Amino acid sequence: MGRMIETSLKSWLPVEPGSDFPIQNIPFGIFRKGVGSPHAATRIGNTVIDLFALAEHGFLDGLGINPGSFNFKYLNPLFELGKQSCRSLRKQLALIFEEQNTRACDRISSATDILYSASVVQMLLPLKVGDYTDFYSSLEHATNVGIMFRDPANALLPNWKQLPVGYHGRSSSIVVSGTAIHRPKGQIKPLNSEVPVFSPTRELDFELEIAFITSKNTALGSSVSTDDAEDHIIGLLLFNDLSARDIQRWEYVPLGPFLSKSFGSVVSPWVVTLDALEPFRVKGPVQEPEVLPYLKFSGDHNFDIQLDVFIQAEGQPETPVCHSNYKFMYWNMAQQLAHQTVNGCNIKVGDLYASGTISGPASDSFGSMLEIAWKGTKPVKMPDGTERSFINDLDTIIMRGYCEKPGLRIGFGEVATKILPAL
Amino acid sequence: MGRMIETSLKSWLPVEPGSDFPIQNIPFGIFRKGVGSPHAATRIGNTVIDLFALAEHGFLDGLGINPGSFNFKYLNPLFELGKQSCRSLRKQLALIFEEQNTRACDRISSATDILYSASVVQMLLPLKVGDYTDFYSSLEHATNVGIMFRDPANALLPNWKQLPVGYHGRSSSIVVSGTAIHRPKGQIKPLNSEVPVFSPTRELDFELEIAFITSKNTALGSSVSTDDAEDHIIGLLLFNDLSARDIQRWEYVPLGPFLSKSFGSVVSPWVVTLDALEPFRVKGPVQEPEVLPYLKFSGDHNFDIQLDVFIQAEGQPETPVCHSNYKFMYWNMAQQLAHQTVNGCNIKVGDLYASGTISGPASDSFGSMLEIAWKGTKPVKMPDGTERSFINDLDTIIMRGYCEKPGLRIGFGEVATKILPAL
Repeated sequence: MGRMIETSLKSWLPVEPGSDFPIQNIPFGIFRKGVGSPHAATRIGNTVIDLFALAEHGFLDGLGINPGSFNFKYLNPLFELGKQSCRSLRKQLALIFEEQNTRACDRISSATDILYSASVVQMLLPLKVGDYTDFYSSLEHATNVGIMFRDPANALLPNWKQLPVGYHGRSSSIVVSGTAIHRPKGQIKPLNSEVPVFSPTRELDFELEIAFITSKNTALGSSVSTDDAEDHIIGLLLFNDLSARDIQRWEYVPLGPFLSKSFGSVVSPWVVTLDALEPFRVKGPVQEPEVLPYLKFSGDHNFDIQLDVFIQAEGQPETPVCHSNYKFMYWNMAQQLAHQTVNGCNIKVGDLYASGTISGPASDSFGSMLEIAWKGTKPVKMPDGTERSFINDLDTIIMRGYCEKPGLRIGFGEVATKILPAL
Repeated sequence: MGRMIETSLKSWLPVEPGSDFPIQNIPFGIFRKGVGSPHAATRIGNTVIDLFALAEHGFLDGLGINPGSFNFKYLNPLFELGKQSCRSLRKQLALIFEEQNTRACDRISSATDILYSASVVQMLLPLKVGDYTDFYSSLEHATNVGIMFRDPANALLPNWKQLPVGYHGRSSSIVVSGTAIHRPKGQIKPLNSEVPVFSPTRELDFELEIAFITSKNTALGSSVSTDDAEDHIIGLLLFNDLSARDIQRWEYVPLGPFLSKSFGSVVSPWVVTLDALEPFRVKGPVQEPEVLPYLKFSGDHNFDIQLDVFIQAEGQPETPVCHSNYKFMYWNMAQQLAHQTVNGCNIKVGDLYASGTISGPASDSFGSMLEIAWKGTKPVKMPDGTERSFINDLDTIIMRGYCEKPGLRIGFGEVATKILPAL
């Protein structure tokens, strides 16, 4: 069975031009209508499709999937069934919703519990996140940070091109798009002071990232090779790794970022499968020096995903601040997962592995305000005449991601986060 | 209702002199007999008591605890009931098992499904760990590491006495005492080389730690004060934070320890409640300079827990390598939890917060081989004439912890980990 849904296929559900969700996408999410129970869902155009209701009506019989897998507040039970089951499910959904299937169209359209307009439902956090790792895999981002904070002549640390640097992040504070986050407070050491002060962060930033989700458990002591890595990866999300730069600067030596990150990280609601992204595979950057054998790989593991970031001040239009692309990643997911497990670390269904800030070579492709405004020296002009070196209270940060080629667009929707004043 | 079980109380179950588990302890764990279902348990002397069976027999009626809370493979559902419920449960257990209660003795002794010898059951991982933080809160340990790896004249980094430094760790690889761990492989940069090699670690170490467990959820955006922190903490475990020093040295700048830690961390099976440890509260070290207001506290939050570490080579007797004490901690748990949440980070039932290596002032109280053998310059002599600067294959690391005063001993049992060769 092929992994992709044919590009020529159309759905009997309306799909507007430029939609992120044609029948070729079929992403997975968790939604709730009003005070109803959360169910697994997919989306075509602006229509959210209740997979539990669809299963209860018998449309998903024969896949060997217990409808109970869709009747839960997280996608974990669905992903636990494995990539092959999710692949069969997407194929079956494409058959049900393709435009020739008038019988399914009639039956489903006349049911009252399957189809919902995206505007009337609430999208929830799609996963119970087990462990969360944040990598640091964009060469341009690591170089920019190195130039600004260490030594421009030796911007990259010696280990950076030898291994995909990463660290463990906080899972409990990962929330879904639309969740407002209060500006965090913490210890900040002013430049001309020997001692820290306690204050709301003055340098609240976003980090534009993509996260992959694992759908297979491994045993402690075992490793996943780069060849096998994608068998463990069900799909991707947009990820906003909110960061408080001043808190980070004071706390992070020697054990890494901690409270500067754990006040909130935000994901988009729809898990876009690797299968749907298959047409957008591209070669990654050349890796020089040569990597150690366990990090070598065959095939293309980068993906051409256009990523845009906007800041929207209250009552103002969206202001674009960044146009980047996931294809710029120096270290790919297969390498990241191989590295994560090379010491025998076990992985679980529902783990989340974020890319690190995705910056490109051009200055309009930098994936954080730290880089965009270059440490405050090049602030961004907003429509109301104000400037931003970092994020203000009541600003909303919006990230969007999509892949496009003639006749096919696969998108992620958006991850939007409003920053509220410190409590 | 008082928190403690009276010191004069005795049990009708046998308790040998020097036992870690008198009727004043009543810890919580998860056990399995043969292929039976995992149940919550407590322990008195060498007897493991099945709490689900005890509830099914009606002994725990009136506490408002659904017996189903004990019929699970983790303690999380029990701890979710809150500290007050766990307190009532411990009090009830003390009434059932105190030596005057001959009626309970007769009924329980004649049942076949309540009492088990500790030697015939398997103790399991007691918790589904949500997030895991590892602090770095021993002044002596941080100073020793600073002297060895940075600048002896400025061993402590500037932030160390201002905040309890910590970082996020990997939850998936936390296992229970008795689980053998394979020596991890990874990237190591030899001293005289510009490039790393791939190799099993040559510097496998333990870190002697104590972990606390939270039993209350908080909302994202809220903080826990030092005054309220212990309301969120149900109890403590022994924690062996296995570390690969050579992997750590190469990977940890700038984002902290990652694969050098995530190959396995080991906990003792019995959660000893803060209530049981109440008689062993002591003052902590004086904190100078003065800490910021959110880190100030009232009362004593250090605990006098004697901690011993032994290495046992295959077929050899145990060799003591460290005698330390939890009372040495510079930063206490109330401060650690207040710091963890001061940015609004939410905490959950079943989170685990480890202390960091617990070293005391004397050289025989250092809590890691790195410090004990002082970077390999003072190797430990073993009974068979061999030496240890780090841990060899087939060595077992054993940590024990207990509190003692006249007429009362409360212990943790042990956390034992055998190191197997790299796979």
